[in-house]
Amino acid sequence: MLDQVSWNENGLVAAIAQEASTGRVLMMAWMNSDALAESLESGYATYWSRSRAQIWRKGESSGNRQKIQAVELDCDGDTVLLKVEQQGGIACHTGRNSCFYRRAEDGNWIETEPVLKSPEEIYGNE
Amino acid sequence: MLDQVSWNENGLVAAIAQEASTGRVLMMAWMNSDALAESLESGYATYWSRSRAQIWRKGESSGNRQKIQAVELDCDGDTVLLKVEQQGGIACHTGRNSCFYRRAEDGNWIETEPVLKSPEEIYGNE
Repeated sequence: MLDQVSWNENGLVAAIAQEASTGRVLMMAWMNSDALAESLESGYATYWSRSRAQIWRKGESSGNRQKIQAVELDCDGDTVLLKVEQQGGIACHTGRNSCFYRRAEDGNWIETEPVLKSPEEIYGNE
Repeated sequence: MLDQVSWNENGLVAAIAQEASTGRVLMMAWMNSDALAESLESGYATYWSRSRAQIWRKGESSGNRQKIQAVELDCDGDTVLLKVEQQGGIACHTGRNSCFYRRAEDGNWIETEPVLKSPEEIYGNE
């Protein structure tokens, strides 16, 4: 199954998370084969953090886990789409439902969504 | 506006196209700054084809253009989300509505969507 994925030159596949109940696209991240295998096995979205260079169990510290309802693969195998239940309603580290909270309008990016919970509340003050 | 995008080491940003009317995620592709500028200016999705190394005006040969309703940028600026009207109803070069037509089930990728129009019908027999 993992061998049908077209891993990129860094051994990663793009992963889009979409809220199953609303259809909203929440975020885009990356998975290596371990992360995809763990996502399929555990039923919770697990990514590869490129900045930290380690497995990223989404929501492990914030509690905002993503329970997977379906995993889909695209035609050329280099992107997976996760239909998820976003626990806590917050996917973005800025404290918003979705990472896509800026919209192009008249030559600017304007913010379209308020912060639901401050990052300090989510992650603590450590 | 383009300077708020975090272009990757190849000068590209990931671009997700979502059907505005249904919420369905159609495809994931890439844009360079020219492609994003043209998308914003023309109102039709324009990508960068990595395989052909050229601007890719989606639907130019098939007629299945993507009329843009909104362009959104994510928190770290390395992914854009296009809400589109998919003309002809077919985003995928295999002749399906969406490129995400395979779903993980019991350790296999199973096809979930029929071909609506054969690639020969879409692109001709050249």
